[in-house]
Amino acid sequence: MPSNELRISLAEHKDRIEKIRNQMRKGGIDALYLVNSPRILYATGFSHISTERPLSLVIPRDGELFFLAPQLEYDHIRGECKLADEVYTYPDYPGKTHPMRLFAKFLTQRGLASAVIATDAPEGAAGGYGYRGPSLRDLMSKAKFVDGRDIVDSLRLVKSRQEIQLLRESARWSEMAHDILLENVRSGVQDTLIGVRSSLDALTRMLKKLGRRYVQLRIALSPVVVGFRGQVGVGSAIPHAVYSKDKIRRGDVLVTEAGVEVAGYTSELERTVVVGRPSSRAKRYFEAMLKAQDTALHEFRPGLRCSSVDDAARRSIEQSGMSDALRHHTGHGIGLDGHEPPWLDPGDRTMMREGMVFSCEPGLYVPGYAGFRHSDTIAITRGGMVFITNYPRSLTELTV
Amino acid sequence: MPSNELRISLAEHKDRIEKIRNQMRKGGIDALYLVNSPRILYATGFSHISTERPLSLVIPRDGELFFLAPQLEYDHIRGECKLADEVYTYPDYPGKTHPMRLFAKFLTQRGLASAVIATDAPEGAAGGYGYRGPSLRDLMSKAKFVDGRDIVDSLRLVKSRQEIQLLRESARWSEMAHDILLENVRSGVQDTLIGVRSSLDALTRMLKKLGRRYVQLRIALSPVVVGFRGQVGVGSAIPHAVYSKDKIRRGDVLVTEAGVEVAGYTSELERTVVVGRPSSRAKRYFEAMLKAQDTALHEFRPGLRCSSVDDAARRSIEQSGMSDALRHHTGHGIGLDGHEPPWLDPGDRTMMREGMVFSCEPGLYVPGYAGFRHSDTIAITRGGMVFITNYPRSLTELTV
Repeated sequence: MPSNELRISLAEHKDRIEKIRNQMRKGGIDALYLVNSPRILYATGFSHISTERPLSLVIPRDGELFFLAPQLEYDHIRGECKLADEVYTYPDYPGKTHPMRLFAKFLTQRGLASAVIATDAPEGAAGGYGYRGPSLRDLMSKAKFVDGRDIVDSLRLVKSRQEIQLLRESARWSEMAHDILLENVRSGVQDTLIGVRSSLDALTRMLKKLGRRYVQLRIALSPVVVGFRGQVGVGSAIPHAVYSKDKIRRGDVLVTEAGVEVAGYTSELERTVVVGRPSSRAKRYFEAMLKAQDTALHEFRPGLRCSSVDDAARRSIEQSGMSDALRHHTGHGIGLDGHEPPWLDPGDRTMMREGMVFSCEPGLYVPGYAGFRHSDTIAITRGGMVFITNYPRSLTELTV
Repeated sequence: MPSNELRISLAEHKDRIEKIRNQMRKGGIDALYLVNSPRILYATGFSHISTERPLSLVIPRDGELFFLAPQLEYDHIRGECKLADEVYTYPDYPGKTHPMRLFAKFLTQRGLASAVIATDAPEGAAGGYGYRGPSLRDLMSKAKFVDGRDIVDSLRLVKSRQEIQLLRESARWSEMAHDILLENVRSGVQDTLIGVRSSLDALTRMLKKLGRRYVQLRIALSPVVVGFRGQVGVGSAIPHAVYSKDKIRRGDVLVTEAGVEVAGYTSELERTVVVGRPSSRAKRYFEAMLKAQDTALHEFRPGLRCSSVDDAARRSIEQSGMSDALRHHTGHGIGLDGHEPPWLDPGDRTMMREGMVFSCEPGLYVPGYAGFRHSDTIAITRGGMVFITNYPRSLTELTV
């Protein structure tokens, strides 16, 4: 990276756009029209808050990139994105003239009225927050619209050196944040307070160390998130719990999460933690979960299929006689989005390749009792895998 | 509300579903198929993290509600939602059999193979995180799919007494959080650290007071969010800024935001704050912004159109000779989503009605210098409007 800022370099963004254009040439596509915020971020490094207001990046096969955007994003785009030659704006949504009609006009001005347009939204808008409008496809009846999602998403499957460097930086601070979390666990306190306090402490340390090198690109109260998300005691048996009213008690099983966003990239680190002396029941589930994760970790290497990692974890759990505690597959790709393809799932036969990055997180859940899940982020190397997150995994080390 | 929990009562959810069914009867619709998380929350009180895994609530015109969901949400739905009789699950996404094929099978089992199905996603899934799959519409070729978004969204335009009570509760804690934020402003500190610290302090006080009455329903590190989101100094001129590396300095103009989620509902409170003695330039913009907000606030009443509020603010800014500092319209509806229709925009001719809730937030932005915006949440009453957020608005009170 040319400056010492922790973000994807301009050169890499130019390279990504060149790769996007290569695919467009092969597919006979004249322009790629993107509305999804992570996809626009991937292509350009520009990050925006996606709302009801349509915003789109257009990458013509030949010629300069341009944006179609609400007026309130004009200065933002101009200040943050060196890759576009023009930002066409509308006053606001819904407007006296609907933005989508103006978008159709701008695209026509750019010579795309009869073009083959690949897009991630044929309606023309991300469509959040009660957005309504005419479909871009209908407004540009001479153009041909085709699905353009994979033009970007296929590039995202394998991470570049810079991407892995950012994920490592994310992991480094997540590990530190997780240390702070464990120091702050107290019985008699609600998990959310421990989480916010630990996030603040970790954020303070990170910003002190990184200063102006650090860039947050996704909207959030804090780019450092460490906590439990309600996965406390019986709440830990709910994989996608949101909140718990219960205070932490001795004997509770907790499932943590730690993620730090660095220039849009967030690694995943989760641990099962026991408060006080673990019961023999807790030990049994913990050890079975750990064995399943160990088994899965041995299945990561180029040339094996994603499904084989899940098969291995599943077989291990079967051998432990705990199949009824399965609630989800073994993991997912990770990068700019918290979950990305490919999937460590029986239904995903994708061949693993060097540079792919995955969460590895087989879990066991016993309703009314507790849940057990570690999640680590790993990268596929030429000969196997390497941990992106480096953090203790044994019950002894995770008893507080 | 029957228990003393701060959330929408079961009776009100039943009433909402009855209203939904009334509309279905009028429209000749057999079932409503919803995937959008806020819409499902509105109908049932059940909140989930929307991912690549399809999840849907089905409301048949006659008969019991049911969910189609990934296995990992089974216990969650069962524990949190008393309104559904059945949760049909698939193992995980993408699966050996794609979840959408199973959804088509479940809908067929429920007698809906040839039904008229209203939906907010004819593809059958919310489609986040790189989801791909066959379209539900294609899989159920005998069914007729129609746009069902307004069946729920039209009900959300006018807020119930309970909803306004929750928004008031949200505002009450937002005001307290904003007080703490102002106490914590220091030059030489990065805004994000002040924001997270203040959010923690406010969350601590709120949970101490509300205890088990409080329920967080949306995923977030903290349900209390107070801070600046990078709107510091020159960053305040970017309405949708994400982050600033700059430390707060004397003379800076800051734009704040304070929002507290209470059972899914979040009010909006934002203030322009000046650090140290305001310059005459800052005063001029501040006073023009305040005058525009005052003018807009006088235009809220039943029977006037939403556009008239925006007209009033815009005229006021024109009279101040600052039209070139306009970047967006005057505000938006607010409730379960941060932005909701109707819009205080020249293009929205919706008639205001008692119980509608809006943000009122005309803003002025001078690139390279600063931005000026207050946002208040107000409710339309029989005779006019009432503040939901009650907070000082004058420059004297907002100079720190």
